[in-house]
Amino acid sequence: MKNERGLLIVMSGPSGVGKGTVRKALFSRPDIKLHYSVSVTTRKPREGEVEGVDYFFRTREQFEQMIRENKLLEWAEYVGNYYGTPIDYVEKTLAEGKDVFLEIEVQGAMKVRRAFPEALFIFLAPPSLTELEKRIIGRGTESKELIENRLRAAKEELEMMDAYDYVVENDEVELACERIKAIVTAEHCRRERVAERYKRMLGVE
Amino acid sequence: MKNERGLLIVMSGPSGVGKGTVRKALFSRPDIKLHYSVSVTTRKPREGEVEGVDYFFRTREQFEQMIRENKLLEWAEYVGNYYGTPIDYVEKTLAEGKDVFLEIEVQGAMKVRRAFPEALFIFLAPPSLTELEKRIIGRGTESKELIENRLRAAKEELEMMDAYDYVVENDEVELACERIKAIVTAEHCRRERVAERYKRMLGVE
Repeated sequence: MKNERGLLIVMSGPSGVGKGTVRKALFSRPDIKLHYSVSVTTRKPREGEVEGVDYFFRTREQFEQMIRENKLLEWAEYVGNYYGTPIDYVEKTLAEGKDVFLEIEVQGAMKVRRAFPEALFIFLAPPSLTELEKRIIGRGTESKELIENRLRAAKEELEMMDAYDYVVENDEVELACERIKAIVTAEHCRRERVAERYKRMLGVE
Repeated sequence: MKNERGLLIVMSGPSGVGKGTVRKALFSRPDIKLHYSVSVTTRKPREGEVEGVDYFFRTREQFEQMIRENKLLEWAEYVGNYYGTPIDYVEKTLAEGKDVFLEIEVQGAMKVRRAFPEALFIFLAPPSLTELEKRIIGRGTESKELIENRLRAAKEELEMMDAYDYVVENDEVELACERIKAIVTAEHCRRERVAERYKRMLGVE
Protein backbone atom coordinates (compact mmCIF):
# COMPACT_ATOMS: atom_id res chain seq x y z
CA MET A 1 0.00 0.00 0.00
CA LYS A 2 1.31 3.42 -0.96
CA ASN A 3 2.26 5.56 2.01
CA GLU A 4 0.36 8.74 2.77
CA ARG A 5 2.65 11.72 2.19
CA GLY A 6 3.37 13.98 5.14
CA LEU A 7 2.36 17.62 5.28
CA LEU A 8 4.82 20.37 4.47
CA ILE A 9 4.25 23.26 6.89
CA VAL A 10 5.93 26.56 6.08
CA MET A 11 6.03 29.24 8.76
CA SER A 12 7.11 32.71 7.71
CA GLY A 13 6.37 36.32 8.53
CA PRO A 14 7.91 39.80 8.72
CA SER A 15 11.45 39.98 10.12
CA GLY A 16 11.57 40.61 13.85
CA VAL A 17 8.22 38.92 14.50
CA GLY A 18 9.86 36.10 16.48
CA LYS A 19 9.87 33.19 14.00
CA GLY A 20 12.98 31.58 15.56
CA THR A 21 11.61 31.88 19.08
CA VAL A 22 8.28 30.32 18.13
CA ARG A 23 10.03 27.53 16.21
CA LYS A 24 12.29 26.71 19.17
CA ALA A 25 9.37 26.73 21.62
CA LEU A 26 7.39 24.51 19.25
CA PHE A 27 10.15 21.92 19.00
CA SER A 28 10.79 21.93 22.74
CA ARG A 29 7.28 20.52 23.30
CA PRO A 30 7.04 16.75 23.74
CA ASP A 31 3.61 16.66 22.04
CA ILE A 32 4.84 17.98 18.68
CA LYS A 33 5.41 15.37 16.00
CA LEU A 34 6.82 17.67 13.35
CA HIS A 35 10.20 17.22 11.70
CA TYR A 36 12.24 20.37 11.47
CA SER A 37 14.06 20.92 8.22
CA VAL A 38 17.43 22.41 9.18
CA SER A 39 18.53 25.25 6.88
CA VAL A 40 21.96 25.58 5.33
CA THR A 41 23.81 28.88 5.67
CA THR A 42 27.13 30.52 4.94
CA ARG A 43 27.05 32.74 8.01
CA LYS A 44 29.34 31.93 10.95
CA PRO A 45 27.87 29.90 13.84
CA ARG A 46 26.83 32.05 16.80
CA GLU A 47 27.63 31.13 20.40
CA GLY A 48 25.89 27.86 21.22
CA GLU A 49 24.72 27.04 17.69
CA VAL A 50 25.24 23.42 16.70
CA GLU A 51 26.01 22.08 13.21
CA GLY A 52 23.05 20.04 11.92
CA VAL A 53 20.75 21.25 14.72
CA ASP A 54 20.50 25.01 14.22
CA TYR A 55 22.01 25.11 10.73
CA PHE A 56 24.25 23.26 8.36
CA PHE A 57 27.21 25.63 8.16
CA ARG A 58 28.84 25.71 4.70
CA THR A 59 31.29 27.84 2.74
CA ARG A 60 30.11 30.11 -0.07
CA GLU A 61 31.69 27.70 -2.58
CA GLN A 62 29.79 24.74 -1.12
CA PHE A 63 26.53 26.72 -1.06
CA GLU A 64 26.90 27.91 -4.65
CA GLN A 65 27.55 24.33 -5.71
CA MET A 66 24.25 23.31 -4.03
CA ILE A 67 22.47 26.05 -6.00
CA ARG A 68 23.99 24.83 -9.29
CA GLU A 69 23.10 21.21 -8.53
CA ASN A 70 19.46 22.13 -7.67
CA LYS A 71 19.83 20.80 -4.16
CA LEU A 72 17.92 23.69 -2.58
CA LEU A 73 14.16 24.03 -2.37
CA GLU A 74 14.60 27.77 -1.84
CA TRP A 75 17.49 30.05 -1.04
CA ALA A 76 18.11 33.74 -0.46
CA GLU A 77 20.94 36.12 0.42
CA TYR A 78 20.71 38.40 3.47
CA VAL A 79 23.35 40.83 4.66
CA GLY A 80 26.02 39.08 2.63
CA ASN A 81 25.13 35.52 3.71
CA TYR A 82 23.27 32.73 1.96
CA TYR A 83 20.39 30.83 3.58
CA GLY A 84 18.63 27.86 1.98
CA THR A 85 16.52 24.72 2.46
CA PRO A 86 18.09 21.41 1.33
CA ILE A 87 15.50 19.67 -0.84
CA ASP A 88 16.52 16.04 -0.20
CA TYR A 89 15.60 16.06 3.52
CA VAL A 90 12.19 17.58 2.78
CA GLU A 91 11.38 15.10 0.00
CA LYS A 92 12.60 12.04 1.90
CA THR A 93 10.73 12.93 5.11
CA LEU A 94 7.44 13.75 3.34
CA ALA A 95 7.66 10.46 1.42
CA GLU A 96 7.95 8.61 4.75
CA GLY A 97 4.58 10.13 5.72
CA LYS A 98 6.08 12.55 8.23
CA ASP A 99 5.20 16.24 8.56
CA VAL A 100 8.02 18.65 7.79
CA PHE A 101 8.26 22.14 9.29
CA LEU A 102 10.16 25.01 7.63
CA GLU A 103 10.80 28.37 9.25
CA ILE A 104 11.94 30.70 6.49
CA GLU A 105 11.90 34.28 5.28
CA VAL A 106 8.99 35.70 3.31
CA GLN A 107 10.75 35.67 -0.07
CA GLY A 108 11.74 32.01 0.44
CA ALA A 109 8.17 31.09 1.38
CA MET A 110 6.92 32.44 -1.94
CA LYS A 111 9.41 30.20 -3.78
CA VAL A 112 8.22 27.14 -1.82
CA ARG A 113 4.64 28.08 -2.66
CA ARG A 114 5.46 27.73 -6.35
CA ALA A 115 7.29 24.40 -5.87
CA PHE A 116 4.81 22.92 -3.32
CA PRO A 117 1.38 24.53 -3.82
CA GLU A 118 -0.12 21.81 -1.58
CA ALA A 119 1.97 22.90 1.44
CA LEU A 120 0.42 24.77 4.39
CA PHE A 121 1.52 28.36 4.68
CA ILE A 122 1.37 29.96 8.11
CA PHE A 123 1.98 33.68 8.47
CA LEU A 124 3.33 34.62 11.89
CA ALA A 125 2.01 38.11 12.60
CA PRO A 126 3.01 40.57 15.31
CA PRO A 127 0.30 41.22 17.90
CA SER A 128 -0.32 44.47 16.09
CA LEU A 129 -3.94 43.64 15.39
CA THR A 130 -4.79 43.46 19.07
CA GLU A 131 -2.71 46.54 19.80
CA LEU A 132 -4.19 48.40 16.91
CA GLU A 133 -7.65 47.59 18.15
CA LYS A 134 -6.80 49.10 21.54
CA ARG A 135 -5.56 52.28 19.84
CA ILE A 136 -8.54 52.68 17.59
CA ILE A 137 -11.24 51.91 20.11
CA GLY A 138 -9.06 53.03 23.06
CA ARG A 139 -8.69 56.31 24.86
CA GLY A 140 -6.91 58.08 22.02
CA THR A 141 -3.95 59.20 24.11
CA GLU A 142 -1.44 58.22 21.38
CA SER A 143 -0.07 60.71 18.89
CA LYS A 144 -1.70 60.92 15.47
CA GLU A 145 1.61 60.06 13.83
CA LEU A 146 2.05 56.87 15.86
CA ILE A 147 -1.45 55.72 15.04
CA GLU A 148 -0.88 56.40 11.34
CA ASN A 149 2.37 54.45 11.39
CA ARG A 150 0.60 51.51 12.96
CA LEU A 151 -2.20 51.67 10.44
CA ARG A 152 0.32 51.70 7.60
CA ALA A 153 2.22 48.72 9.09
CA ALA A 154 -1.06 46.81 9.49
CA LYS A 155 -1.99 47.49 5.87
CA GLU A 156 1.39 46.17 4.74
CA GLU A 157 0.95 43.02 6.82
CA LEU A 158 -2.51 42.58 5.37
CA GLU A 159 -1.06 42.58 1.85
CA MET A 160 1.75 40.18 2.79
CA MET A 161 -0.54 37.62 4.40
CA ASP A 162 -2.60 37.25 1.22
CA ALA A 163 -0.48 34.34 -0.02
CA TYR A 164 -0.87 32.33 3.22
CA ASP A 165 -3.46 29.82 4.41
CA TYR A 166 -3.35 30.74 8.09
CA VAL A 167 -2.38 33.74 10.18
CA VAL A 168 -1.07 33.12 13.70
CA GLU A 169 -0.62 36.17 15.88
CA ASN A 170 2.48 35.99 18.06
CA ASP A 171 0.96 37.69 21.09
CA GLU A 172 2.39 34.99 23.38
CA VAL A 173 4.88 32.35 22.24
CA GLU A 174 3.00 29.47 23.92
CA LEU A 175 -0.32 30.58 22.43
CA ALA A 176 1.27 30.83 18.99
CA CYS A 177 2.64 27.25 19.39
CA GLU A 178 -0.78 26.03 20.51
CA ARG A 179 -2.37 27.51 17.38
CA ILE A 180 0.25 26.02 15.06
CA LYS A 181 -0.27 22.61 16.66
CA ALA A 182 -4.05 22.99 16.23
CA ILE A 183 -3.64 23.90 12.55
CA VAL A 184 -1.59 20.74 11.90
CA THR A 185 -4.09 18.54 13.77
CA ALA A 186 -7.04 20.11 11.93
CA GLU A 187 -5.39 19.73 8.53
CA HIS A 188 -4.97 16.00 9.16
CA CYS A 189 -8.75 15.82 9.76
CA ARG A 190 -9.66 17.59 6.51
CA ARG A 191 -12.19 15.49 4.66
CA GLU A 192 -10.23 15.41 1.38
CA ARG A 193 -7.25 13.93 3.24
CA VAL A 194 -9.24 11.38 5.26
CA ALA A 195 -11.26 10.39 2.18
CA GLU A 196 -7.98 9.81 0.33
CA ARG A 197 -6.94 7.43 3.11
CA TYR A 198 -10.24 5.55 2.91
CA LYS A 199 -10.03 5.33 -0.87
CA ARG A 200 -6.46 4.08 -0.83
CA MET A 201 -7.43 1.38 1.62
CA LEU A 202 -10.59 0.37 -0.16
CA GLY A 203 -8.82 0.42 -3.49
CA VAL A 204 -11.40 2.77 -5.07
CA GLU A 205 -10.83 5.94 -7.07
CA MET B 1 -17.56 48.67 14.64
CA LYS B 2 -19.49 45.69 13.31
CA ASN B 3 -18.99 42.58 15.38
CA GLU B 4 -17.29 39.55 13.91
CA ARG B 5 -19.80 36.74 13.60
CA GLY B 6 -19.14 33.53 15.47
CA LEU B 7 -18.58 30.20 13.77
CA LEU B 8 -21.37 27.67 13.41
CA ILE B 9 -19.94 24.20 13.99
CA VAL B 10 -22.13 21.25 13.04
CA MET B 11 -21.14 17.79 14.24
CA SER B 12 -22.94 14.84 12.74
CA GLY B 13 -22.28 11.26 11.71
CA PRO B 14 -23.85 7.82 11.42
CA SER B 15 -26.19 6.79 14.24
CA GLY B 16 -24.46 4.88 17.00
CA VAL B 17 -21.10 6.54 16.41
CA GLY B 18 -21.18 8.30 19.79
CA LYS B 19 -22.15 11.87 18.89
CA GLY B 20 -23.86 12.50 22.27
CA THR B 21 -20.93 11.10 24.24
CA VAL B 22 -18.40 13.23 22.36
CA ARG B 23 -20.58 16.33 22.71
CA LYS B 24 -20.93 15.83 26.49
CA ALA B 25 -17.19 15.22 26.91
CA LEU B 26 -16.47 18.34 24.83
CA PHE B 27 -18.70 20.56 26.96
CA SER B 28 -17.34 19.16 30.22
CA ARG B 29 -13.91 20.62 29.37
CA PRO B 30 -13.09 23.99 30.93
CA ASP B 31 -11.01 25.03 27.87
CA ILE B 32 -13.90 24.85 25.41
CA LYS B 33 -15.49 28.18 24.50
CA LEU B 34 -18.29 26.83 22.35
CA HIS B 35 -21.97 27.51 22.92
CA TYR B 36 -24.15 24.46 22.68
CA SER B 37 -27.42 24.92 20.86
CA VAL B 38 -29.96 22.87 22.81
CA SER B 39 -32.37 20.95 20.57
CA VAL B 40 -36.12 20.87 20.96
CA THR B 41 -37.88 17.49 21.01
CA THR B 42 -41.27 15.91 21.54
CA ARG B 43 -39.86 12.77 23.14
CA LYS B 44 -40.25 12.24 26.86
CA PRO B 45 -37.34 13.25 29.11
CA ARG B 46 -35.14 10.31 30.14
CA GLU B 47 -33.90 9.80 33.69
CA GLY B 48 -31.67 12.74 34.63
CA GLU B 49 -32.38 14.85 31.54
CA VAL B 50 -32.94 18.51 32.31
CA GLU B 51 -35.22 20.93 30.43
CA GLY B 52 -33.14 23.58 28.63
CA VAL B 53 -29.89 21.68 29.23
CA ASP B 54 -30.32 18.39 27.40
CA TYR B 55 -33.38 19.37 25.39
CA PHE B 56 -36.31 21.72 25.31
CA PHE B 57 -39.19 19.28 25.83
CA ARG B 58 -42.33 20.27 23.91
CA THR B 59 -45.65 18.76 22.86
CA ARG B 60 -46.32 17.77 19.25
CA GLU B 61 -48.66 20.75 18.92
CA GLN B 62 -46.02 23.17 20.15
CA PHE B 63 -43.40 21.63 17.85
CA GLU B 64 -45.66 21.76 14.81
CA GLN B 65 -46.37 25.40 15.54
CA MET B 66 -42.60 26.08 15.59
CA ILE B 67 -42.35 24.40 12.17
CA ARG B 68 -45.19 26.53 10.76
CA GLU B 69 -43.67 29.73 12.18
CA ASN B 70 -40.21 28.94 10.69
CA LYS B 71 -38.63 28.87 14.11
CA LEU B 72 -36.48 25.81 13.37
CA LEU B 73 -33.20 25.80 11.50
CA GLU B 74 -33.70 22.09 10.83
CA TRP B 75 -35.99 19.42 12.13
CA ALA B 76 -36.61 15.72 11.57
CA GLU B 77 -38.83 12.93 12.85
CA TYR B 78 -37.34 9.73 14.30
CA VAL B 79 -39.26 6.79 15.74
CA GLY B 80 -42.37 8.90 16.14
CA ASN B 81 -40.69 11.89 17.79
CA TYR B 82 -39.69 15.29 16.46
CA TYR B 83 -36.21 16.76 16.95
CA GLY B 84 -35.20 20.25 15.85
CA THR B 85 -32.84 23.20 16.27
CA PRO B 86 -34.40 26.54 17.33
CA ILE B 87 -33.12 29.18 14.93
CA ASP B 88 -33.30 32.22 17.24
CA TYR B 89 -30.64 30.97 19.69
CA VAL B 90 -28.26 30.16 16.82
CA GLU B 91 -28.71 33.53 15.10
CA LYS B 92 -28.47 35.57 18.29
CA THR B 93 -25.33 33.79 19.56
CA LEU B 94 -23.52 33.99 16.21
CA ALA B 95 -24.34 37.70 15.97
CA GLU B 96 -22.70 38.19 19.40
CA GLY B 97 -19.48 36.79 17.89
CA LYS B 98 -19.74 33.49 19.79
CA ASP B 99 -19.19 30.05 18.29
CA VAL B 100 -22.25 27.78 18.25
CA PHE B 101 -22.04 23.99 18.31
CA LEU B 102 -24.79 21.73 16.95
CA GLU B 103 -24.89 17.97 17.36
CA ILE B 104 -27.48 16.67 14.94
CA GLU B 105 -28.45 13.77 12.70
CA VAL B 106 -27.11 13.45 9.16
CA GLN B 107 -30.34 14.51 7.43
CA GLY B 108 -30.54 17.62 9.64
CA ALA B 109 -26.92 18.50 8.89
CA MET B 110 -27.67 18.56 5.17
CA LYS B 111 -30.49 21.05 5.79
CA VAL B 112 -28.18 23.30 7.81
CA ARG B 113 -25.63 23.08 5.00
CA ARG B 114 -28.17 24.66 2.65
CA ALA B 115 -29.15 27.40 5.14
CA PHE B 116 -25.59 28.10 6.40
CA PRO B 117 -23.09 27.13 3.70
CA GLU B 118 -20.39 29.00 5.65
CA ALA B 119 -20.76 26.69 8.69
CA LEU B 120 -18.11 24.07 9.54
CA PHE B 121 -19.26 20.52 9.06
CA ILE B 122 -17.55 17.83 11.11
CA PHE B 123 -18.28 14.18 10.38
CA LEU B 124 -17.78 11.96 13.42
CA ALA B 125 -16.65 8.59 12.07
CA PRO B 126 -16.41 5.24 13.82
CA PRO B 127 -12.84 4.02 14.24
CA SER B 128 -13.54 1.71 11.34
CA LEU B 129 -10.73 3.09 9.26
CA THR B 130 -8.12 2.04 11.78
CA GLU B 131 -9.86 -1.30 12.34
CA LEU B 132 -10.26 -1.87 8.66
CA GLU B 133 -6.59 -1.22 8.13
CA LYS B 134 -5.76 -3.91 10.70
CA ARG B 135 -8.03 -6.40 8.89
CA ILE B 136 -6.66 -5.68 5.47
CA ILE B 137 -3.00 -5.62 6.34
CA GLY B 138 -3.48 -7.89 9.38
CA ARG B 139 -3.24 -11.61 9.86
CA GLY B 140 -6.36 -12.44 7.86
CA THR B 141 -8.01 -14.50 10.59
CA GLU B 142 -11.43 -12.86 10.06
CA SER B 143 -14.11 -14.42 7.91
CA LYS B 144 -14.47 -13.24 4.34
CA GLU B 145 -18.05 -12.17 5.05
CA LEU B 146 -17.07 -9.99 8.00
CA ILE B 147 -14.36 -8.29 5.97
CA GLU B 148 -16.80 -7.67 3.12
CA ASN B 149 -19.35 -6.16 5.51
CA ARG B 150 -16.72 -3.83 6.87
CA LEU B 151 -15.61 -2.82 3.41
CA ARG B 152 -19.22 -2.06 2.47
CA ALA B 153 -19.76 0.01 5.65
CA ALA B 154 -16.55 1.91 4.97
CA LYS B 155 -17.67 2.68 1.42
CA GLU B 156 -20.99 3.99 2.72
CA GLU B 157 -19.22 6.21 5.24
CA LEU B 158 -16.95 7.47 2.49
CA GLU B 159 -19.98 8.59 0.48
CA MET B 160 -21.64 10.21 3.51
CA MET B 161 -18.61 12.23 4.50
CA ASP B 162 -18.42 13.92 1.10
CA ALA B 163 -20.56 16.85 2.25
CA TYR B 164 -18.37 17.59 5.29
CA ASP B 165 -15.30 19.75 5.79
CA TYR B 166 -13.60 17.58 8.41
CA VAL B 167 -13.67 13.95 9.48
CA VAL B 168 -12.94 13.15 13.12
CA GLU B 169 -12.53 9.50 13.99
CA ASN B 170 -14.06 8.58 17.32
CA ASP B 171 -11.40 6.08 18.32
CA GLU B 172 -11.18 7.62 21.81
CA VAL B 173 -13.61 10.24 23.12
CA GLU B 174 -10.86 12.49 24.51
CA LEU B 175 -8.90 12.33 21.25
CA ALA B 176 -12.03 13.17 19.26
CA CYS B 177 -12.63 16.21 21.55
CA GLU B 178 -9.01 17.28 21.12
CA ARG B 179 -9.39 17.18 17.33
CA ILE B 180 -12.66 19.13 17.37
CA LYS B 181 -11.06 21.77 19.58
CA ALA B 182 -8.07 21.96 17.18
CA ILE B 183 -10.40 22.38 14.18
CA VAL B 184 -12.17 25.33 15.83
CA THR B 185 -8.84 26.97 16.82
CA ALA B 186 -7.42 26.46 13.31
CA GLU B 187 -10.53 27.86 11.62
CA HIS B 188 -10.19 31.06 13.65
CA CYS B 189 -6.64 31.38 12.26
CA ARG B 190 -7.68 31.02 8.60
CA ARG B 191 -6.26 33.88 6.62
CA GLU B 192 -9.59 34.90 5.09
CA ARG B 193 -11.05 35.34 8.58
CA VAL B 194 -8.06 37.17 10.06
CA ALA B 195 -7.83 39.39 6.96
CA GLU B 196 -11.51 40.25 7.40
CA ARG B 197 -10.76 41.39 10.94
CA TYR B 198 -7.85 43.55 9.77
CA LYS B 199 -9.95 45.06 7.00
CA ARG B 200 -12.86 45.85 9.28
CA MET B 201 -10.51 47.58 11.68
CA LEU B 202 -8.61 49.48 9.01
CA GLY B 203 -11.83 50.42 7.29
CA VAL B 204 -10.68 49.04 3.90
CA GLU B 205 -12.49 46.72 1.54
